[in-house]
Amino acid sequence: MNQERVYATYLVETPDSLAHAAEVIAGEQSTGTFTAVPGETDALKERFGARIERIEELEPVRQPTLPGSKTPSGHDGLYRRGRVTVSFPLHNFGPSIPNLMSAVAGNLYELQQLSGLRLVDLELPEAFAARYPGPKFGIAGTRKLTHVYDRPILGTIVKPSIGLTPQELQRMIADVSEAGLDFIKDDELNANPPYAPLEVKVKAVMEAVERAADASGKKIMYAFNITGDIEEMKRNHDLVVRAGGNCVMVSIMSVGLAGLAHLNSYSEVPIHGHRNQWGMMTRCPLLGFEFSAYQKLCRLAGADHLHVNGLNSKFYESNESVVRSIEACASPMHGGYAAMPVVSSAQWAGTAEATYAATRTVDVMHLAGGGILAHPDGAAAGFESMKQGWEAAVKGIPMAEYAKSHPELQRAIAKYGKG
Amino acid sequence: MNQERVYATYLVETPDSLAHAAEVIAGEQSTGTFTAVPGETDALKERFGARIERIEELEPVRQPTLPGSKTPSGHDGLYRRGRVTVSFPLHNFGPSIPNLMSAVAGNLYELQQLSGLRLVDLELPEAFAARYPGPKFGIAGTRKLTHVYDRPILGTIVKPSIGLTPQELQRMIADVSEAGLDFIKDDELNANPPYAPLEVKVKAVMEAVERAADASGKKIMYAFNITGDIEEMKRNHDLVVRAGGNCVMVSIMSVGLAGLAHLNSYSEVPIHGHRNQWGMMTRCPLLGFEFSAYQKLCRLAGADHLHVNGLNSKFYESNESVVRSIEACASPMHGGYAAMPVVSSAQWAGTAEATYAATRTVDVMHLAGGGILAHPDGAAAGFESMKQGWEAAVKGIPMAEYAKSHPELQRAIAKYGKG
Repeated sequence: MNQERVYATYLVETPDSLAHAAEVIAGEQSTGTFTAVPGETDALKERFGARIERIEELEPVRQPTLPGSKTPSGHDGLYRRGRVTVSFPLHNFGPSIPNLMSAVAGNLYELQQLSGLRLVDLELPEAFAARYPGPKFGIAGTRKLTHVYDRPILGTIVKPSIGLTPQELQRMIADVSEAGLDFIKDDELNANPPYAPLEVKVKAVMEAVERAADASGKKIMYAFNITGDIEEMKRNHDLVVRAGGNCVMVSIMSVGLAGLAHLNSYSEVPIHGHRNQWGMMTRCPLLGFEFSAYQKLCRLAGADHLHVNGLNSKFYESNESVVRSIEACASPMHGGYAAMPVVSSAQWAGTAEATYAATRTVDVMHLAGGGILAHPDGAAAGFESMKQGWEAAVKGIPMAEYAKSHPELQRAIAKYGKG
Repeated sequence: MNQERVYATYLVETPDSLAHAAEVIAGEQSTGTFTAVPGETDALKERFGARIERIEELEPVRQPTLPGSKTPSGHDGLYRRGRVTVSFPLHNFGPSIPNLMSAVAGNLYELQQLSGLRLVDLELPEAFAARYPGPKFGIAGTRKLTHVYDRPILGTIVKPSIGLTPQELQRMIADVSEAGLDFIKDDELNANPPYAPLEVKVKAVMEAVERAADASGKKIMYAFNITGDIEEMKRNHDLVVRAGGNCVMVSIMSVGLAGLAHLNSYSEVPIHGHRNQWGMMTRCPLLGFEFSAYQKLCRLAGADHLHVNGLNSKFYESNESVVRSIEACASPMHGGYAAMPVVSSAQWAGTAEATYAATRTVDVMHLAGGGILAHPDGAAAGFESMKQGWEAAVKGIPMAEYAKSHPELQRAIAKYGKG
């Protein structure tokens, strides 16, 4: 790969030819305008122009996916689809995530020459690694902090997601910590709300965490949701660290990639990256961004953990897409930058089987809300059932079989296994 | 309006009934989970639950817009559409833009119960105004700085958008300043690139700006693109201000609303808000965000100027939508917060007519790249033709008529008026 260029691959749909659409994309995001202006010389285009690297034609369609495209005269009724790779000179913007986005995305989504556009891959030169140090903890560091090896990090989410008083929350955390769980996170709806300020919450939670740790020798990792404005995030982070907290969580789309990178410049504990709002950018198949591309930017900006939905979840996303996201997060980039994929939504012990079968890895964080907390025999049994689900999956023993000698799993199957 | 609640209005498409979809939306973003958990009491739901305020049914469709929705058993083949207003207790998240987004958008776009979702309006309580001071300059402040009243602020864009050396740029700025223009902005592709570092650019540009101001008494407003990571933006801003610069520009989607609000916490000059990448969030009519809702957050976070595309532009957006955006930016919010709408893309003197006819306002910034710089008689004539275009529009004189006694407009029509 040329270390002086950024490669962006798009899924394109166009009423024009793919070749023409590719030219428009390259022109719009480098040297073009609607009418030639003085100074737009060939030498300038050569040095600063984006370059079409590859066009792969796919099946055309008869209906445009997005509104507002303009058909050329004599249009044959077809909307061509293809994968188009364009490269941009790095010196046009430098190794800057915010300015990279203005270049590779920019105005492209609004062009009349396109009836569909999706950014599906990004290949970035090493200069980005020099500028953005990435996750400080990642998979290895999170395992070290939680003392969990050779199996997924198993955890849960504060439930009800909203409305607990600090006292109620403290009781819940005490229960969950005593149940032996590895990890627990705030809900994304719950950061520093007036009804339960973070300062009060941190104090209440850490008391419960430390008390349980003193008793059991195991300190649960608690991801405090510190999502907020830029200065507020710093105050929130410092509050958590001063109280002995060992993880912070942010809603990446709420604070932006720039906000995430800023947090990473001073953070002392792992950053748990939540991707709520992501559906807005990705659910239309011919618009927006593919997560396998976006996760690279999240990792550069410093996410140690990254949410990827779960298999058979309550969300629209296909299992294939979730599997691609899990694999993407851990695949090496610039020789590292692995983030821990966080599998969640409608998860319980039984979802371990499909997850392991599809990914063959235990390097995930597996979160179950109701799937642990609402286990008929309580949170400890819920946690145990999750471990058992993964043991069965890794050993290749059918879950129903394994459950015969593992009552917590048996009870979980009886409760959650009907759906 | 209840000052203790946030009102979010969505365009919804669902294979279920609208009433059911509304319940799922309200539940998911407040107290719900896929299986009931201990502690989820009625009292808690009453205090923290989101509330369905209004459901307005629209025409149903036979094909789902987005993939991945799940039809209920006995589905009649129809996908219901409607406008649904849900209110959220402010104490769930407080007056925080990042946490507001996790609540009103959050996981909603991924729900299987929806085949389309678009956030079309937001009504925020006064508490947001107390937290976010908004534009420091806005329309009035920008007029004061540019000494332009009673007509649009007319300007251009650095062209070619990328690749000029600081010397070439200096020559261009000198020409444009001498031509008398009110405003000029960097291209969004051009912030602080290795080939032309901002520090060098600022020095070169400001020399030309000050020299022209000394000669003519009029100092052009130059929007330096300071888009970058959080700390870098601060350095960039300070660099511009120290050099006597009078405007900074950011790509809002690149720096995030949190990044914009942070910039606004220390900025000393107007913030020119560029909305590149916005198409990703809005081009699918049943997904994402309507600009009339998003612009409220941009204004809260401090954008003094806001890009809205232009009528008859090179982009997909309809003129009706552009007009709605222009009107939205200037409509009062919390008793103020007006931002100057920035009309651009394929603009020239002739687009003044349609713009004024549709909006009846001159409170816009009207930017033309080629439409000024490529005028056959040079930039001064291009600027003159823009003023004449607006004079004709405001006076209600047909452009062709007005052009008979205004040669710059005549020449502009001859060059750009064929398209």
